Amino acid sequence: MGSGRAQANAECWKRMTAAEPVLIDVRPAIEVLPGMTPDTILTSGPAMPFADYVGGQRAAIVGGALFEGLARDAAEAERLLAQGRIKVDGCHAHGAVGSLAGIYTASMPVFVVENRAGGNVGFCNFYEGTNPRRLNYGVYDEGVRERLLYINNVVAPVIGEAVRLSGGVPLKPIMKRALHMGDELHSRNTAAALLFGRELMPHLLKLAEKGADPIVKTVQAVTEDHYFFLRCSMAAAKATADAAHGVEGASLVTAMAFNCKGFSIRVSGLGDRWFSGPHAQVQAKLFKGHSEEEITWMGGESVICETIGLGGFAQAAAFPLQTYQGGSPEAMVERNLELYRIVEGENPDFQIPALRYRGSPTGIDIFKVAETGVMPAMDIGIAGRDGGQIGAGVVRAPMPCFEAAAGAYREKYGDA
Amino acid sequence: MGSGRAQANAECWKRMTAAEPVLIDVRPAIEVLPGMTPDTILTSGPAMPFADYVGGQRAAIVGGALFEGLARDAAEAERLLAQGRIKVDGCHAHGAVGSLAGIYTASMPVFVVENRAGGNVGFCNFYEGTNPRRLNYGVYDEGVRERLLYINNVVAPVIGEAVRLSGGVPLKPIMKRALHMGDELHSRNTAAALLFGRELMPHLLKLAEKGADPIVKTVQAVTEDHYFFLRCSMAAAKATADAAHGVEGASLVTAMAFNCKGFSIRVSGLGDRWFSGPHAQVQAKLFKGHSEEEITWMGGESVICETIGLGGFAQAAAFPLQTYQGGSPEAMVERNLELYRIVEGENPDFQIPALRYRGSPTGIDIFKVAETGVMPAMDIGIAGRDGGQIGAGVVRAPMPCFEAAAGAYREKYGDA
Repeated sequence: MGSGRAQANAECWKRMTAAEPVLIDVRPAIEVLPGMTPDTILTSGPAMPFADYVGGQRAAIVGGALFEGLARDAAEAERLLAQGRIKVDGCHAHGAVGSLAGIYTASMPVFVVENRAGGNVGFCNFYEGTNPRRLNYGVYDEGVRERLLYINNVVAPVIGEAVRLSGGVPLKPIMKRALHMGDELHSRNTAAALLFGRELMPHLLKLAEKGADPIVKTVQAVTEDHYFFLRCSMAAAKATADAAHGVEGASLVTAMAFNCKGFSIRVSGLGDRWFSGPHAQVQAKLFKGHSEEEITWMGGESVICETIGLGGFAQAAAFPLQTYQGGSPEAMVERNLELYRIVEGENPDFQIPALRYRGSPTGIDIFKVAETGVMPAMDIGIAGRDGGQIGAGVVRAPMPCFEAAAGAYREKYGDA
Repeated sequence: MGSGRAQANAECWKRMTAAEPVLIDVRPAIEVLPGMTPDTILTSGPAMPFADYVGGQRAAIVGGALFEGLARDAAEAERLLAQGRIKVDGCHAHGAVGSLAGIYTASMPVFVVENRAGGNVGFCNFYEGTNPRRLNYGVYDEGVRERLLYINNVVAPVIGEAVRLSGGVPLKPIMKRALHMGDELHSRNTAAALLFGRELMPHLLKLAEKGADPIVKTVQAVTEDHYFFLRCSMAAAKATADAAHGVEGASLVTAMAFNCKGFSIRVSGLGDRWFSGPHAQVQAKLFKGHSEEEITWMGGESVICETIGLGGFAQAAAFPLQTYQGGSPEAMVERNLELYRIVEGENPDFQIPALRYRGSPTGIDIFKVAETGVMPAMDIGIAGRDGGQIGAGVVRAPMPCFEAAAGAYREKYGDA
């Protein structure tokens, strides 16, 4: 490796680890996402023509159009989407990241997270709730619609008001602490949700003076499950990764994403181009009554967490994941240790108690992946063919996207 | 071992592990502690004549008398205590357990925890707050007094009202879950405090309709530190251990306690007699600016947690203790595993993720301790000679109390 690349990667890593994500607001997507329009549906992964979307991701896009009132029924939505009168685009192109199918419509509230160290902003919309039937798992029906409206009309306005009263909630201190409490901030966010709730609590109590009911419901939504805080974690990770994007000559990964066709990465020094490969094998633990044959891919950008040193890269912080996605503490430690071979360094803030507070492996280098053959490990939710979540597990990123990125890097920079 | 002892221990262990502690109320000690009087001061460990108390524990007893308004100054308090006109007794004799010096006075609020499986009740008073100068660490001055009054007048009434509104807060589910979030429920209770706060939250929000200010302050007190929930954990442990006490022929430990003179245990089948030994060596991590010479003993009954399979017996659940009391994850696992050799069984509810969800070692058998030489390990706070907390660490119970108890057992039961 030439000193140019080494220097560029050091700078890229510094920007990534120096990020200070602060939740500053909650607003409808149309008000804050750059380039968002009333007739745009965002979805996970590199954008494709609507005709290329299949299965759950296609169903989710159609569901998004219906939820937003852009079509009277699924047939009309399909037609308008095919004609381009309803537009489809990738979340990343609008500063956002999507969970699973990752559907954003104009009216959906989003977390607005500012990186106070870099000035850039990342966004993520809200967790739909504990019901496994969710729009982002490819399901749209009256129940899904009601739960989405509940987020729009009850949960998000209360959280938004509390966040504005707080003057902003610094997320990094919450994330640091949650890693000491059994979370890895991708598939487990239990502690982070409680810590987040604690930060908002004085303001929520103040709001309760005008009537406790909507506040009680909102607190319930924040703390009932492992996943509420994930969307804050994702928005923080997006703001963090974007701060490290665009460093000339840097070979570190700044985004990873699934769509229904495959897995893709972006690289700091290689612009907005995506480098794609196939889907990968998954070690899954399925909910009772489901089988491997049902597993399907409908997108996912929550792996932005792994991109900045969380999730699979901090798995040894989250032994409770044994009961959710399988594995053993020993396997988690081994997998976590292996990932140090493919990163630029050890995170100064995200530390893992089981590894004697060693910083999590952070900043995936495409060349180290290509050279070692150690593939990034990611903690993900698993979708079923018929929609809904059917389990969780660990996937490995496929090699071809790293090889393609390494080739493009050499083309652009030579052997820098 | 005869089958009589085996059967008795199985029954004793069953009662201990079947306990279902529920926080049902918060009341002044005088209203709820059996045998409490307005002029009684409770303190940790087997009760002694006042003349035998020395150092921080003696200072704390005097401080308690002053706080309760039983004397005008320390000299008068000393005189009245020596004359027996202010009485001193052990917490355990009144259904309670004390942290460090463990001072209870009549007006102090206590958590009332009912074991719904056995019908018995355990009590513990409140954490004084984060300031290292505390009555239970042998300090009494205007600041200590103000902080105790703040508990009496602000925090405890709010918590009490919320608990009564809730109809009772089941503590075991909180404790089970906290063990998956980095707590061992003695020296670390961070997650438990957040989970406890979550249970109270709907009721606190309701109370906030009448004005948020006292509720905000109370939530702050509940969640600001590692220790607030310890007192709930201790009351739950007392109710749990007491349920297992008094089983004819059982050789399991049902209480452990320090006073300023030494360490003592009680045994299920040996009545209310204490078996005492000296203090033990401590592996301490001291706060900055303090040294080993300052370490002093002023009592402590929080080791009731270890008695039921928590604290040192669940240390591998709490790797974050590295930064507080020292040690490494590997040493914590090793120490935890060793303790399985001296207990009756593996706890069906308290599970340790780092040990593949193995139940914590529960139910210390005096004969197994005497035979193996493996001494119970306990996570404790460390007091300094001049009062106040100066650190934290791991202590091992001393052998002589187990030998004395084994001797008494043989005297009473023969070789059962």
